[in-house]
Amino acid sequence: MRVDTLIQNADTLTMTGAGVGYRDNCAIAIDRGRIQAVLPMADAGAYTAEETIDAANKLVLPGFIDGHMHTSLNLFRGLAQDTRDWMMRGQKPYSSRMEPENSLPAAYVNMLEALAAGTTTFGEYSFANMVEQQAAFLDRLGARGNLTVTIRGTSNKPVKGDINDLYAFDDNMARRTLEANLELYDKWHGHHDRFTICLGPQGPDFMSREMLIACKKAAAERGMRLHVHLAQGKRETIQMLKRYNKRSIPFMDELGYLDDKLLAAHITDATDEEAQLLAKRGASLVLCSGSIGIIDGEVPPAWEFMKAGGTAALGTDQASGNNCNQIINEMKLTALFNKIKYMDPEVMPAWRVLRMATIDGAKALGLGESIGSIEPGKWADIIFIDLRAKTMMPVVKQPVRNYVPNLVYSARGSEVCRVMVAGKTLYRDGEYLTVDEPELMQTFADTSREYFSRFPLESVKDTVGYALQQEDKL
Amino acid sequence: MRVDTLIQNADTLTMTGAGVGYRDNCAIAIDRGRIQAVLPMADAGAYTAEETIDAANKLVLPGFIDGHMHTSLNLFRGLAQDTRDWMMRGQKPYSSRMEPENSLPAAYVNMLEALAAGTTTFGEYSFANMVEQQAAFLDRLGARGNLTVTIRGTSNKPVKGDINDLYAFDDNMARRTLEANLELYDKWHGHHDRFTICLGPQGPDFMSREMLIACKKAAAERGMRLHVHLAQGKRETIQMLKRYNKRSIPFMDELGYLDDKLLAAHITDATDEEAQLLAKRGASLVLCSGSIGIIDGEVPPAWEFMKAGGTAALGTDQASGNNCNQIINEMKLTALFNKIKYMDPEVMPAWRVLRMATIDGAKALGLGESIGSIEPGKWADIIFIDLRAKTMMPVVKQPVRNYVPNLVYSARGSEVCRVMVAGKTLYRDGEYLTVDEPELMQTFADTSREYFSRFPLESVKDTVGYALQQEDKL
Repeated sequence: MRVDTLIQNADTLTMTGAGVGYRDNCAIAIDRGRIQAVLPMADAGAYTAEETIDAANKLVLPGFIDGHMHTSLNLFRGLAQDTRDWMMRGQKPYSSRMEPENSLPAAYVNMLEALAAGTTTFGEYSFANMVEQQAAFLDRLGARGNLTVTIRGTSNKPVKGDINDLYAFDDNMARRTLEANLELYDKWHGHHDRFTICLGPQGPDFMSREMLIACKKAAAERGMRLHVHLAQGKRETIQMLKRYNKRSIPFMDELGYLDDKLLAAHITDATDEEAQLLAKRGASLVLCSGSIGIIDGEVPPAWEFMKAGGTAALGTDQASGNNCNQIINEMKLTALFNKIKYMDPEVMPAWRVLRMATIDGAKALGLGESIGSIEPGKWADIIFIDLRAKTMMPVVKQPVRNYVPNLVYSARGSEVCRVMVAGKTLYRDGEYLTVDEPELMQTFADTSREYFSRFPLESVKDTVGYALQQEDKL
Repeated sequence: MRVDTLIQNADTLTMTGAGVGYRDNCAIAIDRGRIQAVLPMADAGAYTAEETIDAANKLVLPGFIDGHMHTSLNLFRGLAQDTRDWMMRGQKPYSSRMEPENSLPAAYVNMLEALAAGTTTFGEYSFANMVEQQAAFLDRLGARGNLTVTIRGTSNKPVKGDINDLYAFDDNMARRTLEANLELYDKWHGHHDRFTICLGPQGPDFMSREMLIACKKAAAERGMRLHVHLAQGKRETIQMLKRYNKRSIPFMDELGYLDDKLLAAHITDATDEEAQLLAKRGASLVLCSGSIGIIDGEVPPAWEFMKAGGTAALGTDQASGNNCNQIINEMKLTALFNKIKYMDPEVMPAWRVLRMATIDGAKALGLGESIGSIEPGKWADIIFIDLRAKTMMPVVKQPVRNYVPNLVYSARGSEVCRVMVAGKTLYRDGEYLTVDEPELMQTFADTSREYFSRFPLESVKDTVGYALQQEDKL
């Protein structure tokens, strides 16, 4: 049979079945972007291909799924660390001064960073004034996007005084951003078979109850999935208790939000019981361990959610509080943080976080039928790991294999040597094949330099970062 | 003035003073391996140099100090993860079958991995039958070594039955390994101004009280520093309580071990009060966050030790339970684990762990007068970080700098583009300048393949790794 591409000599983690679906030395046939067959090398002669790719000395697996990222915040990488009240006192002095002409170049380079480290599906959660350009960039890059617009109905002004004062709601703002999200859906959902659009009420505390209900209704009418920051910390819980005398998850349950259309981000401040309720209702979770660890010093109850049968993806959140957008980093931190939380090294093993980064992540995003594993009928979103990298050595296949632990605990991202989406190679051995990387890097360097040259010092004078710099600690 | 080397246009973290000692756009003059001057570029004309190095678009800082590593265990990378009782049931089935002809090639490649990620001082803690070859390799590489021999007085047989049974002591074994450590000291201490040798009683539970006293005495006679695994987990505490009815730290205090000659590794199972006592006695700590996190699911009380005035270094421990030997990884994990432990994102900030990796690490190893910062008189152990790497972008110098957070939280190791020890460049842009890397890699690949091809399956049949493989999870 004639196919477009035949990958040969591939030691493969197919991520099918209940484990990692390891297949020794196989061939993978790809045609019109989809996987046609996964078969022993001995049977590969049944296929002839336009392009053959030798995967000897490589580990082959599905591309990583990053369920939750805010790439435009890459403009502020490293500027809001080691600080309490991160969102209001760390991030906001910067994010409230975002301008698309500076943030978009940052976002594009952030996407390049993630792609080179194996991310093939980008769970971008962005703003109405930038998201379409990000979608267009991902399209040009050839990557897969699961995009959400931030629907918000509160002012974005820097907070003065008590950050626990109730925010004033602005339903018009919520309506405008909801409208933008729906427009994005109409235009991009299903585009090139690589884009899906979710509806993104930012969180239960960021708009009125009426607008939360309006969002849920708009999503239901279109069969859209919802992607919501939920129980993302004590700040939110305080708002919810003051306003409704309810915690976030029970409140959203009353509103009918907890169902199989919901992808909840974070659940930092959820109780174990609330996490279990979320799982029981069939909602999915996107866990951003690195972000929540550095921002809040907390480990969300994802393990309780998963033990209760819930499906969880991983997300890198933002470069201004995580700080690198690499799923390999996220896998490692997720495994280690949970071992520490439960004081048990057998909790959250490597294979489990690898599933979160691939097949379980796909399921959590509602894409489990089309991506997340290497099996016939699915899109050929496939990455190759160089087994001659020092971090992947020695390569041991008996008495036990060490592929999965080395990928999760040892790899640093640079081991990814080929990234393919829908059968097309987008990145190979340090080179980006679909976009002009040097130009994108130069634009980011230039625009960020110009932007910060006129950034008002006063606006960050009460941040921890400024204090650290005064003390010669930055 | 004429010098060997002049580094120009260097944004530098000198690590002098109480913070990170940032110096904008400076020149660093190096002669006969030592730093002669750090001065503004405007004054650099006072020096002419054999070799000038342009550090534009680089961040320059002291080389990283890895206070505690067992590189020969790199042979077993990824083979003992996600398991309880790591030492006895995870690691021992492998380490009890170590052979120098296989472990040494693994150790060398592990050292290359660390060097390329910025490690200039190698705190190798190894076995009498390998350590001298490791020293010779480090010498050839041109790196700095602070070496210790494992002095042990218990049998190394795989444990059957209850791992909490008391181990049988073997004073002859302890005497033989003590002798080997002293021989290494006589031969290598002070060698090429790059080697220091410590005395290494493995731990309070691994030899008789008499032999612990003999080790302390032998060290005192020579003015040697001691490097000891201390309170490294519940297994050890159980041994100590059963045998002496005392916990490790009070027991070692009685023996006179807790003083400014002691470098204690781990203190995983120390109480806060014991950690404070250690600091009060002037002993140093080497903290291996990644290792203890993955092995034990614990975060040692290093923050308490530091708050009590103690000086701490970082260590990567071993590739078979950490798993990568990169200090950048260790800095990040140390910061994040402690934020999580104390549920406070301001605990263990980036600048603090960067000091642990450099100047405080040097002090902890007793090398604070000669390395760890960039200042006149010290050895020129210097590394360069590529500021055009995506993980270090954007480069922001105002309103606040982001160098330190990006290096600690975002960098992945590959940003290190030049590594210099005593003024000599050992690694640059992916190339090793003093050893034949391809040959070393090939030898490691060949010897490890051969070794595992005859590794007895029965010996690991009761490990977690074997069970995971049976379940298709490796």
